[in-house]
Amino acid sequence: MKIKPLVAALTLVAPLYATAAEFTLTDTATNTYVENWEITNQKLGFGNIPFSIEKVRLHGGKQEGVDIIVIKNGELEVTLVPTRGMGIFDVKKDGKRVLGWDSPVKEIVNPAYIDLESRNGLGWLDGFNEMMVRCGYEWTGHPGVDDNGQLLSLHGRVQNTPSSTIKVIISDEAPHTITVEGEVSERTFKKAELVTKTSFSITPGENSFSLNDILTNKSDYDDEYQIIYHSNFGSPILEKGAKVYAAASEISPFNSYAGKGLKDWQTYLGPTKGYDEMVYNLKPVADKSGNTLAVLHNKAGNLGVSMQYNTSQLPVLTIWKNTDTLQQGYVTGIEPGTSYAYNTKFQRPLGLVPTIHAGESKHFDLTYTVLSSSAEVDSAVKDVNKLLNGKKVQQVHEPIVDLSKVQ
Amino acid sequence: MKIKPLVAALTLVAPLYATAAEFTLTDTATNTYVENWEITNQKLGFGNIPFSIEKVRLHGGKQEGVDIIVIKNGELEVTLVPTRGMGIFDVKKDGKRVLGWDSPVKEIVNPAYIDLESRNGLGWLDGFNEMMVRCGYEWTGHPGVDDNGQLLSLHGRVQNTPSSTIKVIISDEAPHTITVEGEVSERTFKKAELVTKTSFSITPGENSFSLNDILTNKSDYDDEYQIIYHSNFGSPILEKGAKVYAAASEISPFNSYAGKGLKDWQTYLGPTKGYDEMVYNLKPVADKSGNTLAVLHNKAGNLGVSMQYNTSQLPVLTIWKNTDTLQQGYVTGIEPGTSYAYNTKFQRPLGLVPTIHAGESKHFDLTYTVLSSSAEVDSAVKDVNKLLNGKKVQQVHEPIVDLSKVQ
Amino acid sequence: MKIKPLVAALTLVAPLYATAAEFTLTDTATNTYVENWEITNQKLGFGNIPFSIEKVRLHGGKQEGVDIIVIKNGELEVTLVPTRGMGIFDVKKDGKRVLGWDSPVKEIVNPAYIDLESRNGLGWLDGFNEMMVRCGYEWTGHPGVDDNGQLLSLHGRVQNTPSSTIKVIISDEAPHTITVEGEVSERTFKKAELVTKTSFSITPGENSFSLNDILTNKSDYDDEYQIIYHSNFGSPILEKGAKVYAAASEISPFNSYAGKGLKDWQTYLGPTKGYDEMVYNLKPVADKSGNTLAVLHNKAGNLGVSMQYNTSQLPVLTIWKNTDTLQQGYVTGIEPGTSYAYNTKFQRPLGLVPTIHAGESKHFDLTYTVLSSSAEVDSAVKDVNKLLNGKKVQQVHEPIVDLSKVQ
Repeated sequence: MKIKPLVAALTLVAPLYATAAEFTLTDTATNTYVENWEITNQKLGFGNIPFSIEKVRLHGGKQEGVDIIVIKNGELEVTLVPTRGMGIFDVKKDGKRVLGWDSPVKEIVNPAYIDLESRNGLGWLDGFNEMMVRCGYEWTGHPGVDDNGQLLSLHGRVQNTPSSTIKVIISDEAPHTITVEGEVSERTFKKAELVTKTSFSITPGENSFSLNDILTNKSDYDDEYQIIYHSNFGSPILEKGAKVYAAASEISPFNSYAGKGLKDWQTYLGPTKGYDEMVYNLKPVADKSGNTLAVLHNKAGNLGVSMQYNTSQLPVLTIWKNTDTLQQGYVTGIEPGTSYAYNTKFQRPLGLVPTIHAGESKHFDLTYTVLSSSAEVDSAVKDVNKLLNGKKVQQVHEPIVDLSKVQ
Repeated sequence: MKIKPLVAALTLVAPLYATAAEFTLTDTATNTYVENWEITNQKLGFGNIPFSIEKVRLHGGKQEGVDIIVIKNGELEVTLVPTRGMGIFDVKKDGKRVLGWDSPVKEIVNPAYIDLESRNGLGWLDGFNEMMVRCGYEWTGHPGVDDNGQLLSLHGRVQNTPSSTIKVIISDEAPHTITVEGEVSERTFKKAELVTKTSFSITPGENSFSLNDILTNKSDYDDEYQIIYHSNFGSPILEKGAKVYAAASEISPFNSYAGKGLKDWQTYLGPTKGYDEMVYNLKPVADKSGNTLAVLHNKAGNLGVSMQYNTSQLPVLTIWKNTDTLQQGYVTGIEPGTSYAYNTKFQRPLGLVPTIHAGESKHFDLTYTVLSSSAEVDSAVKDVNKLLNGKKVQQVHEPIVDLSKVQ
Repeated sequence: MKIKPLVAALTLVAPLYATAAEFTLTDTATNTYVENWEITNQKLGFGNIPFSIEKVRLHGGKQEGVDIIVIKNGELEVTLVPTRGMGIFDVKKDGKRVLGWDSPVKEIVNPAYIDLESRNGLGWLDGFNEMMVRCGYEWTGHPGVDDNGQLLSLHGRVQNTPSSTIKVIISDEAPHTITVEGEVSERTFKKAELVTKTSFSITPGENSFSLNDILTNKSDYDDEYQIIYHSNFGSPILEKGAKVYAAASEISPFNSYAGKGLKDWQTYLGPTKGYDEMVYNLKPVADKSGNTLAVLHNKAGNLGVSMQYNTSQLPVLTIWKNTDTLQQGYVTGIEPGTSYAYNTKFQRPLGLVPTIHAGESKHFDLTYTVLSSSAEVDSAVKDVNKLLNGKKVQQVHEPIVDLSKVQ
């Protein structure tokens, strides 16, 4: 590490390459850190579509010291949380939340206040309130003691790992795409050296954004990895009568309880006391390039979200229906991943705990699109149907893992 | 959460209601935070009795980032710790501690440095040094694995939870009562949504202060709760020959070791090597309104403290005699609660793990009074005797829970 | 604790005693804290040999809030880490690292982000990257459940304990020795009150530095203690053909795997995939004053390090050969201690878990010397041989603890 005194004022408007302005807001390797900062299209003299990127440090309670980045692209307002693994807290449109949900956890919790192994590995629940949570990379899924005797805590460590870097890159050329990069590392001597260059991109004026993450195993040894993009939606999209579409060949319940709701998997109840959660495992189908799509929309079919991902990168899909009461957290998760939500030891025999070779990189590319009209929703549903190619999602009644036997 | 840049300078001298000045020093919902701040009666133009309220941020060691609030009311100086669940660190009079004790833990420890589940659930001991510690609310008592397989760590999580808000309210009208409120929340997705609005009040020139806490179960489901007000006193009140009085019908030892000291429960030894602790379970008696009283005073009977509480809110009382050596922590606890100090699983069968219904609120009101003369001490002891109404505290030799059998 | 507002600017150039300037940069007892600070020989008007001492606060990632102190003495540049138990991060010479190593852990991790009991007590590995790590004091060694049922986490708690004080003392008299003191305390109610006054000293222009630590049991009860000075060296000293010398009567392998490398214990392989680690237990021999020496040097024998320590304080020596790949952490540890690296419960029967009586202090004095020429290396090796007095280090094939039986 090269130590230098903290950069007090930002003077780093240096071009990254010929066609972009790059701002380094955090870089632990050089002790670069900017506490509060803002840039706008006006300051840069860029374009007619107004945009701004702001970094704010939060204080008080359990969000003491948390950094957030708020990106307004003239259409959407996205809040990223570098301190929590570069997750996405929520997305607003016209000042109101369109993507995200209301968790009983209200603060954006600094991982310093979280003990992931508490409650037999459920500590992750103390901070879970984001729209997009990366679950990985050493492991993911439900907590449990792995075959080697180690407790694997719920959904891994990455979301509770502060980003080592924050870079904001704005293209010099129209349409001036905005990219926020952050390196989130799981580094433990003798155990893991899994480094993820997360990348969030959005173009001014557009209603979609992309994640283009690159996981690299910096170790000299092969390692296992798992990742789930735990993407969570509540009001205003989720409501009684909301529907989900996924291009998939097959759906099966996570457990026997979810089996009871299998036939109605595509529609949602309103807030329902005692519902808890029903979870489904899907096998996505894709086009020749591996691209596939899932869509969630409200009852009227004029508001929704689509998620495009690639099955060569993220071969399975979990749909998490948590339509319990509003206070309990009324939310559904659409969760492409390498793996389902079972504990790692149950997924190894299924081939869902892949290997990343020494030095190897894995790419994960997802695009989230906010659908703001019936036309946009219809078009997205049509795209799902195109991928289904006239076939139905086959309902399989037996869970992939028989949890009654394996515990 | 509405994000805005941190409020750098305090300009929030806004009236809460017609007759008070309110200052919001922390509010995580709006990212309001004031690092260092002070108000005085002079600045406010209030009254003849000098008072001041000061907020200070601590730095260094394990107290890095801890906020404290020091309230001087012209008679007492009380230090609250928002970062540690709005506990009371100590109370001074004429510049010297009158309430509080000397723990081997010297710093006011930021919960970020505490792992409550460490040492089989004894992590709480890494930060225990306050005069008043709230023990709750999801559970309280000694650590142990609950019937559902979850480790319940010593005395719960609330004292190691930073307050989400800090409000200082000073009445416009004489006697200008000072109130400090803080919301301390135990929020865990699917597990708990127990929100406590703590409130500390003191009137300029008086020798007493009150806690008026409101616990609300914000969840849509009923939940268990437990609370002990772990109130701890060492020198100068505690000394050889100090005495404790409690309006109670019955006292029994916590375990067989405490049984040996039962007959002498009311008097204290000096610092005694090898004493460790003797703990007693009392059943308080109260007046028609439920009010009851406990009193601790020094040997000479001219210095003491009384604690008034309500048995409809806090039906049981623990007296913790820890008259071990000075370095080990020479201290006694007077601890009204919903529960004794046994692990939760042993208190359920006793009816000491109450339910808080969905949406319900529970109130807890206590008044601590510093007794600075023989007359004040005598009067307080008389009040205890009045409640006893000529009856003695009956000594029961069998512990309520037979720990030799239940482990 | 005496609370006062944070000292914003340093004005503490007060003489400690007649012949030194003392600067208190942190003192939690008085809430003294200086965020960034620097002093030089020029500012002090001291001497012809340039020196500087700088304190910097790190930000971002998991090193948020970490304090480091960089001492340049005109010959060496040493980085101390008060936030991590006053460890030594690395030592540079002519701008390049001479002592230290490349761990997969890159940031200087704030203990707030470490859960020592995670991974069955291996949480320490999340922050392990320093040249000198104190392993102690309540316990040290490999993790495991002690006889009393408590998990002892890897290498104890002290390195993940922020220092409560930082004092910089510079002698008024030539050669103006620089001392940095920090009090690192393991304080847990009823469990431990082990306070270590760490002291690092270096003289301007010299190629060596000393640690002179004093551990005091402030408790009124005797306690166990253990300490290992885990001193770690990678490139440029460690390389294929590097050699280690230790004045010892006997060496034995830590386990059967290390037994395979016993005969070659004195030489090092280059980075070797699959090597993991071979660990050796040595019994040092000393001169009449108890002083003994270990030396590590590069293949050419013109660069090295010597460590002088005292066998009356630190009776045993561990040599940790971790010549795995570069990315995995190519490093060797030379580790004088009260104890070997076995779990505490295996060392009690060996007499390697000493007692520190109530109020007692234990001193630990070590001197590290950077050897920058063949002459310096040869001289140090000669000193080792002098202590060996013509005898060889006897190779014993049986490990002291038979781990195959005791697990």
